[in-house]
Amino acid sequence: MPSTSLAFASAEAHRAWLETQAALPAGFRVGTASFAFTPVEVSKPSKMNLTLLALDRPTDAFALALTTNAFPGAPILVARQRREGARLGAVVVNNKVSNVCAPGGVEAAERVCAAAGRALGLAPDEVLPASTGVIGWRLPDAAMVQALPGAAAALQPRSVLPAAEAIMTTDLYPKVRRAEVGGGAIVGIAKGAGMIEPNLATMLVFLLTDLDVARDELRAALDEAIEGSFHGITVDSDTSTSDMVVLLASRARPAPARAAFRDALRRVCRDLAEDLVRNGEGVHHVLRLQVSGAPDRAVARAVGKAVANSPLFQCAVNGNDPNVGRLLCAIGKHVGAAGLPLDMSRVRIRMGGELLLEGGLMQLDPAKEERLVRHLRAAELYASAPPADGLTFRPPLRHPPHERSVELEVDLGVPGGHAAEVLGADRSHEYITENADYRS
Amino acid sequence: MPSTSLAFASAEAHRAWLETQAALPAGFRVGTASFAFTPVEVSKPSKMNLTLLALDRPTDAFALALTTNAFPGAPILVARQRREGARLGAVVVNNKVSNVCAPGGVEAAERVCAAAGRALGLAPDEVLPASTGVIGWRLPDAAMVQALPGAAAALQPRSVLPAAEAIMTTDLYPKVRRAEVGGGAIVGIAKGAGMIEPNLATMLVFLLTDLDVARDELRAALDEAIEGSFHGITVDSDTSTSDMVVLLASRARPAPARAAFRDALRRVCRDLAEDLVRNGEGVHHVLRLQVSGAPDRAVARAVGKAVANSPLFQCAVNGNDPNVGRLLCAIGKHVGAAGLPLDMSRVRIRMGGELLLEGGLMQLDPAKEERLVRHLRAAELYASAPPADGLTFRPPLRHPPHERSVELEVDLGVPGGHAAEVLGADRSHEYITENADYRS
Repeated sequence: MPSTSLAFASAEAHRAWLETQAALPAGFRVGTASFAFTPVEVSKPSKMNLTLLALDRPTDAFALALTTNAFPGAPILVARQRREGARLGAVVVNNKVSNVCAPGGVEAAERVCAAAGRALGLAPDEVLPASTGVIGWRLPDAAMVQALPGAAAALQPRSVLPAAEAIMTTDLYPKVRRAEVGGGAIVGIAKGAGMIEPNLATMLVFLLTDLDVARDELRAALDEAIEGSFHGITVDSDTSTSDMVVLLASRARPAPARAAFRDALRRVCRDLAEDLVRNGEGVHHVLRLQVSGAPDRAVARAVGKAVANSPLFQCAVNGNDPNVGRLLCAIGKHVGAAGLPLDMSRVRIRMGGELLLEGGLMQLDPAKEERLVRHLRAAELYASAPPADGLTFRPPLRHPPHERSVELEVDLGVPGGHAAEVLGADRSHEYITENADYRS
Repeated sequence: MPSTSLAFASAEAHRAWLETQAALPAGFRVGTASFAFTPVEVSKPSKMNLTLLALDRPTDAFALALTTNAFPGAPILVARQRREGARLGAVVVNNKVSNVCAPGGVEAAERVCAAAGRALGLAPDEVLPASTGVIGWRLPDAAMVQALPGAAAALQPRSVLPAAEAIMTTDLYPKVRRAEVGGGAIVGIAKGAGMIEPNLATMLVFLLTDLDVARDELRAALDEAIEGSFHGITVDSDTSTSDMVVLLASRARPAPARAAFRDALRRVCRDLAEDLVRNGEGVHHVLRLQVSGAPDRAVARAVGKAVANSPLFQCAVNGNDPNVGRLLCAIGKHVGAAGLPLDMSRVRIRMGGELLLEGGLMQLDPAKEERLVRHLRAAELYASAPPADGLTFRPPLRHPPHERSVELEVDLGVPGGHAAEVLGADRSHEYITENADYRS
């Protein structure tokens, strides 16, 4: 379950709440800049944002988690080297071009890191690059190097919100979450609305803390937090080539108890993971799947993902249509294809607390159908409206109006079995519009 | 590659061609009936079609392939028993309700088989049931029993087309394919437009032949033909609970050479498989993926499926947008998640014959981009038009206007490696509309 259950009456109210979350921990500064450029692969002008996340002093306490996609982007290749380095002093982030499989990609990323290092007084290998955007296009590194002094001049120690905004691509609103722990804080920002089924990772997430937690513990805590958060989400099952979770500790404040730190980090990661799904491309409904009674945690998660990634179930939810046969189909497809030794007569499925399946039989009637429709409608973030041109569906959201979800429980029936939570989303006209012509 | 490359100027021209395909092999008759009923799970009137496929004399030469979904429908459970039986004399098919996990489902299916047997002079276990439609609803078996004499009275030995039409649900047009071989023929019909990633199977397919091929050879030939056809297609990755491929031989004509029979059966299955994708729910473009250079055939197919099931790539194709980075992302996601030991620098990707990736680098420029757009547009079956109510997208197709596809080649670079073909489809507003409220 999420650590909050918020509702926002307006984008202004959401923004005011984000500002309360966004105060930077001690020892960090944030600056951004933006500029126009023309990708050489297509002859259309475009715009890029550059973001600097800088530490007052380089730190040896950092942790990185990187995508498992077999075509990793150049920033991922560079990050693999940085991971074993002595210190990090800054992250330089760009949107619009993800620098994946583009000629000279690693060299371009290194040139940007070197320029950021010159602006900040850091060695090139103390700067971590991160990119998100179109795959296959070349990084406009010369224009980025020109824009870097502007981002450095904008550095300020108060709020992470400018960075949360600058790293957005198709995101509708910035995502910032914080936890206070000990005498310090963990503040996280996230980007990502499509190509989301982290493993790890399909987005950019930056977690900043001022707490004095050493590298080894930081890495163990991050792995644990990711397992319970980003690894359990999917918008569209596409694990990206590019993205990463970065945790930086400035060590400006004394460490809290280990359990308290881990708990706070887990909370921030879970909240950001849910934010990513709720702001997923075209998302009208968040699906929360609690899968229990599984032979192991991996099976529980895989069953949850099978439901969350079922196009037919996603569409039914989009239409507030309790077509629960598709829920059953998605579970049965996965169990059958994976050859799992489950007794399907012990499976129990609920939606919005209503029992749907028990003893291998569906439990449906018209009154229950109506209650299920009400549950779906209550979890809806917005309904599609006919677009002006008849074809171009744009989400009307500038903020998440509430944090309700379609609540699904699947008990696979293994006594003393394992559980996992998966967050997914429905599939809408807005997703199709967004992705049928994303690059233009 | 498909065995035909047809284009149809109108629904009438398509229908005339279907009629040339639809002549029944010797020894078969087809009859249909339809009636109104109200599902007890929702209080809305609905309509069901009943179809009888009858042999003049029961045959011991039949083969069945059944879904691997772990929640199999009642007809699948009955079919598993029939598979080892002595003879089949008829198949009774209904649309609208798939009879899956509904109370008393097997008993209801058996009652319908017994009534069909009475109408046709067959033992109950000589009748095979097949159902497609909403999952979880109860079969209206009493109404079906009442309608059966009408279907029996309509039996005729000329054309399979009435059956191809009666088994449709969301299909836009009937699907019939034939091959002449030896002195006889194989004629196949298929139903299925959604919940399509057979394994096996996500649809209903009935293959009728008058050739005297014995049971063992029939089963071996069917397994081989399915492996090269239905197992290589996906519309929406959802393997259904219900569906089946049935091959019946009346043995009225002498058997041809074994290789000729297998080749003809393979051709009919491949053509029907392509028909299923081309008439998939909301499909604007068929994707044909030729994956080669794989360590084994399963890997080749899995890589093809990963691309064909990528929502982001599906949407890009829908918009005629050559966002080929997503193609690369989908391959990299699968290879990374499956931990395949491939040298990604040896991977080569082409689209419409254009080289996209070689040596780990994308090969893109504005002129190639334009050629890719032209290739996508040429493969488009139709473009969305703004719907009258602003939200309800309906495909304008009543026939497949052509058999062109988006041609993708992925060479995974293993010398002497294995290959597989996968057929998939794009993702459209019409799919969302169809599935956001399918049941109403």
